[in-house]
Amino acid sequence: MDCNVHALFLGPKSENRNFFKQMIDFVMDEHIHWRRDFHPSDKPVVSLSEQRSDRYAEALMRTEEALLELSARLKSGSVPFFSPRYLGHMISDTLMAANLGYLATILYNPNNCSYEASSASTMLELEVGQDLCHLFGYEKETSWGHITSGGTVANFEALWVARNLKSLVAALNEVRPDLLESFTSKQQANLPTKTLLDLLAQVKADGQLQAVREATSQYRGAGPKLGKVLVPQSKHYSWTKAMDIMGLGQDALVAIPVGSDFRMDTEVLNKTIREFVEQEVPIIAVVAVAGTTESGAVDEIHKIAALKRELNEQGVGFYLHIDGAYGGYLRALFKGEEGEFLPFAEVKRVCAKREDFCPLVDWPNREIYDAFQAIREADSVTVDPHKLGYVPYAAGGVVMKDRRALDLISYFAAYTFEEDGVEPALLGAFIMEGSRPGASAASVWMAHKVLPLNINGYGKLLAYSIDGAQRLYRAFLEDNAFEVNGREFTVHCLTRPDLNVVNFVFHEVGCESLQATNTLNRFLYEQCSYRSGPVYLEDFILSKTILEPSIYGPATHQFLSQIPMSTEEFDQGTGVFVLRSCLMTPYLTSNQSFEEYKSKFWASLTHHLTRYTEKFPVSKRPASQNGVFEKVQTACSASAS
Amino acid sequence: MDCNVHALFLGPKSENRNFFKQMIDFVMDEHIHWRRDFHPSDKPVVSLSEQRSDRYAEALMRTEEALLELSARLKSGSVPFFSPRYLGHMISDTLMAANLGYLATILYNPNNCSYEASSASTMLELEVGQDLCHLFGYEKETSWGHITSGGTVANFEALWVARNLKSLVAALNEVRPDLLESFTSKQQANLPTKTLLDLLAQVKADGQLQAVREATSQYRGAGPKLGKVLVPQSKHYSWTKAMDIMGLGQDALVAIPVGSDFRMDTEVLNKTIREFVEQEVPIIAVVAVAGTTESGAVDEIHKIAALKRELNEQGVGFYLHIDGAYGGYLRALFKGEEGEFLPFAEVKRVCAKREDFCPLVDWPNREIYDAFQAIREADSVTVDPHKLGYVPYAAGGVVMKDRRALDLISYFAAYTFEEDGVEPALLGAFIMEGSRPGASAASVWMAHKVLPLNINGYGKLLAYSIDGAQRLYRAFLEDNAFEVNGREFTVHCLTRPDLNVVNFVFHEVGCESLQATNTLNRFLYEQCSYRSGPVYLEDFILSKTILEPSIYGPATHQFLSQIPMSTEEFDQGTGVFVLRSCLMTPYLTSNQSFEEYKSKFWASLTHHLTRYTEKFPVSKRPASQNGVFEKVQTACSASAS
Repeated sequence: MDCNVHALFLGPKSENRNFFKQMIDFVMDEHIHWRRDFHPSDKPVVSLSEQRSDRYAEALMRTEEALLELSARLKSGSVPFFSPRYLGHMISDTLMAANLGYLATILYNPNNCSYEASSASTMLELEVGQDLCHLFGYEKETSWGHITSGGTVANFEALWVARNLKSLVAALNEVRPDLLESFTSKQQANLPTKTLLDLLAQVKADGQLQAVREATSQYRGAGPKLGKVLVPQSKHYSWTKAMDIMGLGQDALVAIPVGSDFRMDTEVLNKTIREFVEQEVPIIAVVAVAGTTESGAVDEIHKIAALKRELNEQGVGFYLHIDGAYGGYLRALFKGEEGEFLPFAEVKRVCAKREDFCPLVDWPNREIYDAFQAIREADSVTVDPHKLGYVPYAAGGVVMKDRRALDLISYFAAYTFEEDGVEPALLGAFIMEGSRPGASAASVWMAHKVLPLNINGYGKLLAYSIDGAQRLYRAFLEDNAFEVNGREFTVHCLTRPDLNVVNFVFHEVGCESLQATNTLNRFLYEQCSYRSGPVYLEDFILSKTILEPSIYGPATHQFLSQIPMSTEEFDQGTGVFVLRSCLMTPYLTSNQSFEEYKSKFWASLTHHLTRYTEKFPVSKRPASQNGVFEKVQTACSASAS
Repeated sequence: MDCNVHALFLGPKSENRNFFKQMIDFVMDEHIHWRRDFHPSDKPVVSLSEQRSDRYAEALMRTEEALLELSARLKSGSVPFFSPRYLGHMISDTLMAANLGYLATILYNPNNCSYEASSASTMLELEVGQDLCHLFGYEKETSWGHITSGGTVANFEALWVARNLKSLVAALNEVRPDLLESFTSKQQANLPTKTLLDLLAQVKADGQLQAVREATSQYRGAGPKLGKVLVPQSKHYSWTKAMDIMGLGQDALVAIPVGSDFRMDTEVLNKTIREFVEQEVPIIAVVAVAGTTESGAVDEIHKIAALKRELNEQGVGFYLHIDGAYGGYLRALFKGEEGEFLPFAEVKRVCAKREDFCPLVDWPNREIYDAFQAIREADSVTVDPHKLGYVPYAAGGVVMKDRRALDLISYFAAYTFEEDGVEPALLGAFIMEGSRPGASAASVWMAHKVLPLNINGYGKLLAYSIDGAQRLYRAFLEDNAFEVNGREFTVHCLTRPDLNVVNFVFHEVGCESLQATNTLNRFLYEQCSYRSGPVYLEDFILSKTILEPSIYGPATHQFLSQIPMSTEEFDQGTGVFVLRSCLMTPYLTSNQSFEEYKSKFWASLTHHLTRYTEKFPVSKRPASQNGVFEKVQTACSASAS
């Protein structure tokens, strides 16, 4: 199969409007007649004479009036994500199939909390869950996946599992100490996930599941003594929230520094894990990120997985969670149509041979490939269809390698859970949330149906996105000087992007002040965002982030010295204001369209730089802004991810 | 204003199909042209020749094919919630305005996590939040409300606030012990919510907010020692989950028995609270339910509020949360068009004078009125638009009386949060969830626009629903004998419904066995549910619940003895299988349509009873089923709520 990607979206100029409207018309008629055909002999409850009364017309008018107001507000206050001119957050046009799936399902209004209220869409969710398990190389029979309202809740759920699993040791020590006799105290502090789940299965087989559960944190509560959670500094802020919400407290979060490549420093991580294991400090979970929200950096999961294997051989281990909320879908690019994980050379070959986009000669490199391959060794993964799955909000997702872990978060009485085979259909009893829209699941199901999770399905779409990003990155390398009103500006990319996020900073040649450089970039951001007026009127739309010294120290040092700039202000606590473009758009991939938009983008940047020089003549070049503003921006940027 | 309610829904026979399709057509065209009008001079990225290629047509076909399959699955596996024949869960047809709002917004795909990604719909959510605050009598300037993915998350969020607020005392003892000097240890164990928030404000004014936060459970973790959470036995199971997730543990949940009216026994509750206060046992929160998911019972909130006032005068108190996920919207029925809480007599007068539905002579009674009035004294409320707000999933909601509490769950750096006025727009930093669909907020906004939250807006729609339920209740009282194949059956309602949920049990006259009675009712349930085939082919659709001896002891005793039946089996642990009808439909309110569907329903019940007598002749009347099945059913029923 070789799918035309552009045919899958409504399009920047609504190119597929006729098809899309025809499909909507069809699904609406399907629903309308489905209603009429339920007990066809039932008379209409609303008579024609009622329908033709004044008060009836008045009520319809109220609906129409409200809709007119809503439409006006949406059009004036929405963001043109669909356009190749949108180079901001991790969002773009969404798949027509996904939108049609959502629209078609809303009127049936299924609630995937329970099969009884959603017999069609619960099954769709189970299928989608299996798709995602399969994406990460998990066994269909033993793994488990489902849709959440977003990546934040998915991360919460994974930590919930890891936390309750960690509390199992104390519970066993109380209820079944015999099962732990063969383990040393060092092992007990950090038993491998599989060992814990085997012990749980043993207890269950012995009919003591409920007694043991009543001694876990499900009944006894949590607290900081349960153990540590290791995350990269570059983590999404939902991890900080998660520690608070799960009752572990932020103090139990151990942040591992990020190296000069904006990835977690795996050497420091591995050293920390070994130390904790030696010192018998319990580790609740280790989190690695596959695609950070700030820079798209992919942690070296293969190295973490290798340590996990090594420790497991010594009878110790740790729960490994991958936060692939952003990057998870990328694994499709490495999978063949039979679901196999392709050899590296084959991935390169397929990417290179495609005619319709520039050969991704530099991408992927071996490290990214190895990292994605190793995800199958993780215990759970967060993966959001509403990010690189190109479906509308809200659709996050979480998958777990070994579904036996559900016993520790399930809200079934234990003895029931043991006996029947129907449990997956009662989703509400195995997940954090309760009532949930079946429409989300239907939307993701449609997307997976149209674009399978392999190199020729999602892989092709995602390659378009990455191709666009690599093009922009190279354009910034090759064509990076702007001369405006006799002043020289250069643009510098933070890194060669791991995925499709391009971070860049404008710098006025000769300007040594970081504060002034921040002001320049903030000015450009404001010209390319809602801060200078309705985004609908902007030429291009960017997002931004702040590199905080406490988070991105080494990487930022290297970056600043390349510009070159002094690192003094940064070391004293001033963050670096960075322009950030997630190139999710599938439209910047042919030479022609890329060059067309590139020249418009450069012209727009030149225009904004001109305004900057007018507003800030060299004599008045700003020296400093208060720090508070930058903090607000950080929170804002993180929020949108 | 006097709104025609039937004009607000698509209708059981798609009566408003033309209007609805016209509106969809309009909003789709609006969106399509909005895209085309963004930088009108940009050329289409997808050329006509590409659009007319075979591979393009093939890709469109893939989308269409998937949609055909989805539509077929939806039609065969969805539940006809729209029909007056659906008498099951708390769901019915949804407001056209809400559906149109959702459909119109999906394509713009705003993310209400951050204003930057949703400048239109974030504002809609803030407006909706204010509507809900106002509904409960909270001050607009000082309260706070927003949309969640559902009632479960709303309950989590309220407990999160209450938990962190409870940990403030220990934090103050560490950082600012001077502020607590004037309080006795008894007071410190249970300070009133307002006192705690005043202390927090003091700390903030002194520039020590962050230092104090770092000593609360946000940083230090939680655990069972923090205090108790008091809930009625009739609580939704999300409260048990919440205790687990928040790290407090289920053991810290104190379940208050339910009286013979299926409401929490307020005397026991008040006695327990007083004892805890005397014994200096910290109370994290007291939860009262406004409309339980099982029976719709409304707890006597006014009595709890009175105790709260009384204790506050002694310098002690407790955090009061109302779980109004189901019943919350009902408060609209007691409010005038100016937002005032109407005198009781005025509510009765308006309900009685309406021509188009049977005078609600018996409803509301004074207790329900008082309970709803007293919600304004609670600290927070869960209220789900996707239940009695008649909007599609997913839209839960939570409101808080005093927004200062956000300081303890916020993910802003404290010093930022202090200084600017933009915080509400960055919703992601003040709530549990991250990325969220702006479409939910737009959907609720549309609903509130068309039906204001007062006696003539939502109040009128909800009165229709209650009217239908009271009619069904009375019909069961008056016409409760079924004679089939020479065997006599009677039907018995559990209680006079507080709201619109009618619970009833069929009983074969002379049959003393509870197990046999359960089998009879289970048989009827199966005939009226997906368990006997696609629900689309059923005549009527019911839901069910199990009255567990541990939860509904006294109430069930009284009920069984009225039938009359022995309570022996129940006392030995057998639950009572109950048929449950939430009458959310607005279509069973005129004499004509009620009588029409009543006679069809009675005929259908008679038909099923006939089949029952054929399957189970008296000699083979079943004695017992295993208990496991009933447990599964309980979880299933609870899940859907």
